Amino acid sequence: MLIDSSVLGSGQKLWKRAKKVIPGGNMLLSKRSEMFLPEYWPSYFSRSKGCHVWDLDRKKYTDLSIMSIGTNILGYGHPEVDNAVRHVINSGNMSSFNCPEEVFLAEKLIDMHPWADMARFARSGGEANAIAIRIARAAAGKGKVAICGYHGWHDWYLSANLGKNNVLDGHLLPGLEPNGVPRELEGTTLPFAYNDFEGLENLIRDHDDIGVIKMEVSRSLGPEKGFLESVRKLASEKNIVLIFDECTSGFRETFGGVHKKFGVDPDIAIFGKALGNGYAISAVIGRSEIMEAAQSSFISSTFWTERIGPTAALKTLQVMERMCSWETITAVGSQISQRWKQIAHEHRLEIDIFGLTAMPGFNFKSKNNLSFKTFITQEMLKKGYLAANSVYVCTEHTEQVLNDYFEALSPIFSTIADCENGQNVNDLLEGPVCHSGFKRLN
Amino acid sequence: MLIDSSVLGSGQKLWKRAKKVIPGGNMLLSKRSEMFLPEYWPSYFSRSKGCHVWDLDRKKYTDLSIMSIGTNILGYGHPEVDNAVRHVINSGNMSSFNCPEEVFLAEKLIDMHPWADMARFARSGGEANAIAIRIARAAAGKGKVAICGYHGWHDWYLSANLGKNNVLDGHLLPGLEPNGVPRELEGTTLPFAYNDFEGLENLIRDHDDIGVIKMEVSRSLGPEKGFLESVRKLASEKNIVLIFDECTSGFRETFGGVHKKFGVDPDIAIFGKALGNGYAISAVIGRSEIMEAAQSSFISSTFWTERIGPTAALKTLQVMERMCSWETITAVGSQISQRWKQIAHEHRLEIDIFGLTAMPGFNFKSKNNLSFKTFITQEMLKKGYLAANSVYVCTEHTEQVLNDYFEALSPIFSTIADCENGQNVNDLLEGPVCHSGFKRLN
Repeated sequence: MLIDSSVLGSGQKLWKRAKKVIPGGNMLLSKRSEMFLPEYWPSYFSRSKGCHVWDLDRKKYTDLSIMSIGTNILGYGHPEVDNAVRHVINSGNMSSFNCPEEVFLAEKLIDMHPWADMARFARSGGEANAIAIRIARAAAGKGKVAICGYHGWHDWYLSANLGKNNVLDGHLLPGLEPNGVPRELEGTTLPFAYNDFEGLENLIRDHDDIGVIKMEVSRSLGPEKGFLESVRKLASEKNIVLIFDECTSGFRETFGGVHKKFGVDPDIAIFGKALGNGYAISAVIGRSEIMEAAQSSFISSTFWTERIGPTAALKTLQVMERMCSWETITAVGSQISQRWKQIAHEHRLEIDIFGLTAMPGFNFKSKNNLSFKTFITQEMLKKGYLAANSVYVCTEHTEQVLNDYFEALSPIFSTIADCENGQNVNDLLEGPVCHSGFKRLN
Repeated sequence: MLIDSSVLGSGQKLWKRAKKVIPGGNMLLSKRSEMFLPEYWPSYFSRSKGCHVWDLDRKKYTDLSIMSIGTNILGYGHPEVDNAVRHVINSGNMSSFNCPEEVFLAEKLIDMHPWADMARFARSGGEANAIAIRIARAAAGKGKVAICGYHGWHDWYLSANLGKNNVLDGHLLPGLEPNGVPRELEGTTLPFAYNDFEGLENLIRDHDDIGVIKMEVSRSLGPEKGFLESVRKLASEKNIVLIFDECTSGFRETFGGVHKKFGVDPDIAIFGKALGNGYAISAVIGRSEIMEAAQSSFISSTFWTERIGPTAALKTLQVMERMCSWETITAVGSQISQRWKQIAHEHRLEIDIFGLTAMPGFNFKSKNNLSFKTFITQEMLKKGYLAANSVYVCTEHTEQVLNDYFEALSPIFSTIADCENGQNVNDLLEGPVCHSGFKRLN
């Protein structure tokens, strides 16, 4: 069955128009149509609510995919968060004065993370990362950064790829091209591998001008025993500022950073994505002796004073705390992993599970993994689902939603099992295989 | 008369609390209390509407100051823009799909600027500046940047101050400290003075690796005859990408960039501040052969996909176009300058007028200028005004508002005249003199 082009037409038509006036088509690699289902992805939404999304033709889908890349742990359009934002619009979102909510939000995040004393806010994760690096470098008085994981698009980070090898390829997204990043920054950001403490130790032995370690606490894998503790100890011994980037991991396994679960405190932590349940807000929190270095560096931007972000964050944190949303989504995520394993086992398919418990993913142990992922997206779309091979769980993913999802997914696993036994998956794909990283679009 | 501390108490109390949990107290230098009236500024708002702002104690002020540093040309809380944002909240502001509004906004901005073919969006002016620099460097294949004016807090810009002299001091804000900016960037950003074409020519002769010229088209001063044309010609001859930063100047004198008034087109233009009438949105527009370089560099951020920004911008542009708001605010700004001159003349005070016509400012030709500015702020606050020595005009600044403002201001000019004739202005100040640039706060 071909996807009915009259149904999917509007989104793909607009996506083609977009690529003419926006280089790359949109603002976020992870939301490119080509990352899901080239030529057929509905691409644009008219409405979103709970775990449902409506395309431009008002067709409704259940989102068991990236849930806006993890911004909406409480689901789309949470009524209490939305009402708080409506109140801001009614009373005024900007003025020559500051909004008091930013102070309350700083106090709340500090209260949630007793090791931290001060906060700064921005409106995107990339910005928050750049602020944290600026402050850490100023505090450390040493400029080089050891990094592990994905930390956005800014010069300081992409400079790691200025050398001959794409050293960032192991860190979430492959193929990040650094054209336009000043060559002078080559060698200022140095990657190390997750769970490779010896590698980090050697890196720091070889570069005594490393002043900052920035890492994701946990992403595809969890930390091996003692890894985080050793990093912390090394940073303290060498007077290196330790930054945990919790943009993705924050609020998924604890009320705050996932580092709380592991009992290891950084000097600075960064939050974004889920903090405002879909409204733009990101945060940098840290110990006062580090954060005060911000006063010796100019870090200032007009829209960081806008009132929606901190207001949405305050209400989101209140709702999360009341619901213990991190427990809910962790339990649901765990169940999803189990049921993937179960249907894989039923169809004699081998899969690997990856990711935080509350945002699990799977890969087929097969050379056709990417084609299978594309095939799942294609077939699930026909059945009214946004679904590929990972789920950013939200509190709206109820038992019923999961049951229906697995009922829809199981026969697709059956077809994939046929493909592992001789059928050609490419014969079943109605368009190209999805992209797996950064690529030029035509 | 002392300012009644019971009235002003809540804001100053919260500001003191803020400085304990936020390094520098807030997110924007220009909204620090110390930039207006140290120890007495109300600092925080509960409500804003039109050209009025209410502090935490519900005291109402008329804003004849920075109008949220120029974000609200249509006044605070414009009903049509707010309704468009309400509609976004009702229908959903985020999803795994993209928002169609970003495509329509790209097309609209291109339509308004026929030399431009493509657009990218971000959520702050600093980000938009950094995106433009990344794209321009990638397109030019040469890394150094010649700059004139103020362009935000990012590494690429502040690196100009890494040398021994604070070379950025002439460019709007003095004292911008670059601690934490990698020393490797020293010499990559090179300032030139506004209207000094020969200086720019020499700079480019001495540095053949300059690939980008970034400048404000007009700010404190307008361009001398032929200046912009010469810069354009030089850039074209040397294959240098010319960027006009219109974050501040955009929408103030034309429907779009002020460069339209001067008939000189850049290769890239940047918009922010007024674009969404107070909602966070910034834009980079450019010629396609330049903008396509974005496809060879990773530039991507989650919150750039949020739906409020482009929706607010689309509606703001529609209202601006219908009202010809740039004509209104330019006429009002011109009137304000005239009436400042008039009351100065009446009180035999000498003042200099500066700034775009729609955002005029004045300085007293006196060594006590900063004290006088502080005194005006102090006295006008008592009379229910936010007012210092510059006005970011909005469409809500009606004839009646201006008449009342000048009636309140005239006797203060009279007292200042007394100070020029022997009275000590410092005896009249109830707190410290306001800051004029970047300083550490305690």
